[in-house]
Amino acid sequence: MTNAMIDRQLGFLIEIDRLKSVIRQSPLLDKSRRENSAEHSWHLAMYALVLAPYANEPINLSRVVTMLLLHDLVEIDVGDTPIHHQADPNDQHDREAAAAMRIFGLLPPEQGDEWRKLWHEFEEKNSADARFAKALDRLQPLIHNVVTGGGTWNESNVTEAQVDERYGAEIERGARELWVVGKELVRKHFSSGDREKP
Amino acid sequence: MTNAMIDRQLGFLIEIDRLKSVIRQSPLLDKSRRENSAEHSWHLAMYALVLAPYANEPINLSRVVTMLLLHDLVEIDVGDTPIHHQADPNDQHDREAAAAMRIFGLLPPEQGDEWRKLWHEFEEKNSADARFAKALDRLQPLIHNVVTGGGTWNESNVTEAQVDERYGAEIERGARELWVVGKELVRKHFSSGDREKP
Repeated sequence: MTNAMIDRQLGFLIEIDRLKSVIRQSPLLDKSRRENSAEHSWHLAMYALVLAPYANEPINLSRVVTMLLLHDLVEIDVGDTPIHHQADPNDQHDREAAAAMRIFGLLPPEQGDEWRKLWHEFEEKNSADARFAKALDRLQPLIHNVVTGGGTWNESNVTEAQVDERYGAEIERGARELWVVGKELVRKHFSSGDREKP
Repeated sequence: MTNAMIDRQLGFLIEIDRLKSVIRQSPLLDKSRRENSAEHSWHLAMYALVLAPYANEPINLSRVVTMLLLHDLVEIDVGDTPIHHQADPNDQHDREAAAAMRIFGLLPPEQGDEWRKLWHEFEEKNSADARFAKALDRLQPLIHNVVTGGGTWNESNVTEAQVDERYGAEIERGARELWVVGKELVRKHFSSGDREKP
């Protein structure tokens, strides 16, 4: 009985190895290649552990970390959706929800249900934990774009106002103090010669 | 004041991006490339969240997850040490301890000290949390080697007895039930035609 349970859990852990092959738009900081969603999830969990004191609202940190570790698993089925090239949001939501059913459904039901709910909570941003997690999911690519001289912003001709809207609003909602620092980096980036020409 | 603190924390989070470029011996399950230490750390944290019920001793799961997320950071300075090619262990320990001083020293002192201690605890396996974390750090590459038909075992002509010694002992110490399943996978692997010829 225990062995059958472990087999099922190992099956899930084997399946999610595929997240390492989902490629995001954001570059590594040394620009050697683009980031994959598994290492991005690791990085976000580290962001949460380091920056937890700046959450606007009281959070459950271990819940935030779990949420960030699993937030991109649906991309195994549907791929990464770049922030500057959103498809039809309804269609995307349906495809991601189906992916969540399949992937979390590989786990024993109790755990699978809990994680699918946690993923929905992240997507819907309807809790303090989710708002802070979402803020970090915007802050990390912002840092990558600033440090690499523009990154995906150059590729998509993104303006400072668009950065404020697509990144700043979420960061401010989850962690006001981090947006004070983030906004200053963005302001400097757009007003200086640091930007690479597209 | 807060901004200076955040700048320092972001400096750490920027530095650790380099873990994504530390390449391990273990292959991805689709054999498309070798795994890097950042995505490996993500995978181990997922192992901990899924397999926590099988720890031999009571554990603090969020502490285990944190430990696994940061356990390989020293590799930014010293690289990955393959399990089947151990260098002088004293020399390696000194170099890793120096790396821990530098990397965790990038954080504000209180947090840096706490994390450096957590890393030492993992290395020394002198707590229930560390023993369970170490068990998973052996189980995950074992799964990758079995699923890929041998992986690093083929490359180094590793025998079943060596697997029992280098993987099994640690897994059993942290999570007896997982070694029951793991040992069965190892036994089948070495007794079947699944192995690729080296």
